[in-house]
Amino acid sequence: MAAALQQKINNLNKPKGSLGRLEELAFQIGMIQQTLSPELRHPVHLLFGADHGIEREGVSVSPRCITWQQMVNFTRGGGGVNMFCRQHGFELHLIDVGVDYDLSTYPAILNRKVAPHGTEDFLHGPAMTEEQCQQALAVGRELVDEVFAAGCNILSIGEMGIGNTSPSSIWMSLLLDLPLERCVGAGAGLNNAGIQHKLNILRRSVEGFYRLNSDSPTNSSTNNHVNPSQLLAYFGGFEMVAAVGAMLRAAEHRMVVLIDGFIMSACALMASRLTPSFLDYAIFCHCGDESGHRLMLDTMGAKPLLHLGLRLGEGTGALCAYPIIDSAVRMINEMGNFEDNHITKYF
Amino acid sequence: MAAALQQKINNLNKPKGSLGRLEELAFQIGMIQQTLSPELRHPVHLLFGADHGIEREGVSVSPRCITWQQMVNFTRGGGGVNMFCRQHGFELHLIDVGVDYDLSTYPAILNRKVAPHGTEDFLHGPAMTEEQCQQALAVGRELVDEVFAAGCNILSIGEMGIGNTSPSSIWMSLLLDLPLERCVGAGAGLNNAGIQHKLNILRRSVEGFYRLNSDSPTNSSTNNHVNPSQLLAYFGGFEMVAAVGAMLRAAEHRMVVLIDGFIMSACALMASRLTPSFLDYAIFCHCGDESGHRLMLDTMGAKPLLHLGLRLGEGTGALCAYPIIDSAVRMINEMGNFEDNHITKYF
Repeated sequence: MAAALQQKINNLNKPKGSLGRLEELAFQIGMIQQTLSPELRHPVHLLFGADHGIEREGVSVSPRCITWQQMVNFTRGGGGVNMFCRQHGFELHLIDVGVDYDLSTYPAILNRKVAPHGTEDFLHGPAMTEEQCQQALAVGRELVDEVFAAGCNILSIGEMGIGNTSPSSIWMSLLLDLPLERCVGAGAGLNNAGIQHKLNILRRSVEGFYRLNSDSPTNSSTNNHVNPSQLLAYFGGFEMVAAVGAMLRAAEHRMVVLIDGFIMSACALMASRLTPSFLDYAIFCHCGDESGHRLMLDTMGAKPLLHLGLRLGEGTGALCAYPIIDSAVRMINEMGNFEDNHITKYF
Repeated sequence: MAAALQQKINNLNKPKGSLGRLEELAFQIGMIQQTLSPELRHPVHLLFGADHGIEREGVSVSPRCITWQQMVNFTRGGGGVNMFCRQHGFELHLIDVGVDYDLSTYPAILNRKVAPHGTEDFLHGPAMTEEQCQQALAVGRELVDEVFAAGCNILSIGEMGIGNTSPSSIWMSLLLDLPLERCVGAGAGLNNAGIQHKLNILRRSVEGFYRLNSDSPTNSSTNNHVNPSQLLAYFGGFEMVAAVGAMLRAAEHRMVVLIDGFIMSACALMASRLTPSFLDYAIFCHCGDESGHRLMLDTMGAKPLLHLGLRLGEGTGALCAYPIIDSAVRMINEMGNFEDNHITKYF
């Protein structure tokens, strides 16, 4: 299949390689779907929302009430994510996996709360129990099973959770064995003092994790053998764990998975540590300015499609790249080849 | 208007600046249209085709017959440009301004030939006469007037003309006062020996230009005062001069102009030297791998939207970026603001 796909792409009516990344995307999607004529059907955007205990340590410029307010706003169509979903024909699913607010009066928000007020503060212990972690993973899997059954074969995932760059930075640091200071950035707009405070809180949190997991090394620079599953529950947000569950299930269904910015890239990294073949199904859509995002993508060998300075979250970076992926699929299906078109073959 | 636009963008329901380049695009388009609620109407892609005398010097890996063959292919819908136009709802206009072939049997190709076989070989003298140059500019203007009258306010421009990286490199070198070797690249796929040959031919061509224009310095490294209009006729292809005419006329109509890759960037550079305010109307869509393209864009202060390794020409890089521009316009029109949405203002 790989050879046949590459041959079809090379014979399209253009100099070999001249459609650059589109050719790579067409190849990847053809391999995912195991066909020379891939299709994108029924695109869905899953937006998981939850609150984070670590937010109480002042690691974010935004207060936690923004999480529920934005979830409500998304039900009214006024968010960035709504605009992109309308533009590109994505069906938007809003899922509350632990927003610190009663959203049950909003029928557009699916209630899958794992805990009513979000995770615990991981400065003082695990963010969630093992049972909660399994429950959050199951929420992600369940949603993917549903949309897959409805015909979806391309999935985009977003998040709403004030404070969630903090667990993302820790996952990045511990999974990639990189010093925390290279993984921590300004989030939605911290100043330098704020970043330093965040770094201190996260460093102490990681020390706490190692104290509890005494089989692991105590020095974070030598933690090659950290167990991804432990990190999932100890630091994860419910929305992040649900996203990991969704990613892994989507790959099992051979769906294309669009990866958004820093937080979703950290979830994709986690997914790839749990199931390495996951990366075959992932398209990294946007590299933001959050310090460390480029480093994370480079370390994973991921080549993001866009660099547009987006840092809104919600999955907007993934949605914004969708037309390029659509172009790649149209290219392999719609462009003529040299024989059909009586063009002198010159390259 | 600038202050009101910026205020509207800042008050949209997102952290200030968090939609990055989309916010800059919305501002630019609002300024072009002088409105807080910009619109994109009736997008049109003009594709100008012509042949180049310089092609006879072996500066291109592709033979000149590709120009007419591809023009015919575009009438059948099988080119890259057709695929993008269908995807993004662009009306495609094919204009023959000097393709070295009788295309009059193809009604989809508008016959505006300035010369039946294309330009003269600028290694031995001017590519076109001053009258031909004016005629090619007028073709571009005429087409833009037509589509503007039909309601178009956003224009994309592409080219088909084997050999046209050569005049583009010379325009870049002479207009930006950069050594030719930093402006010459592989085109559609020259090897190193081919690039060296191309460089030698172009260097001799530039020397010939200076011999004929003795008021200019003979050393190309000190030619700050080269006259853009002279370069237009001496080196230009008819499709490139028509594109310059179209660009300038589009700016006069306050249309948004999408700039494709290396060749169209060279035309935009030329347009900006003839009318500096042109750049206010231009959106640079794609930075390709052609050696010198990034340098040209940096020198012009242009920040391209995409870097996808496209090098097909035809205007495909411009078309590929259209959904991002559409997103920017939707953002400013569709996203709620903080007061409407009862979101705590926290940034």
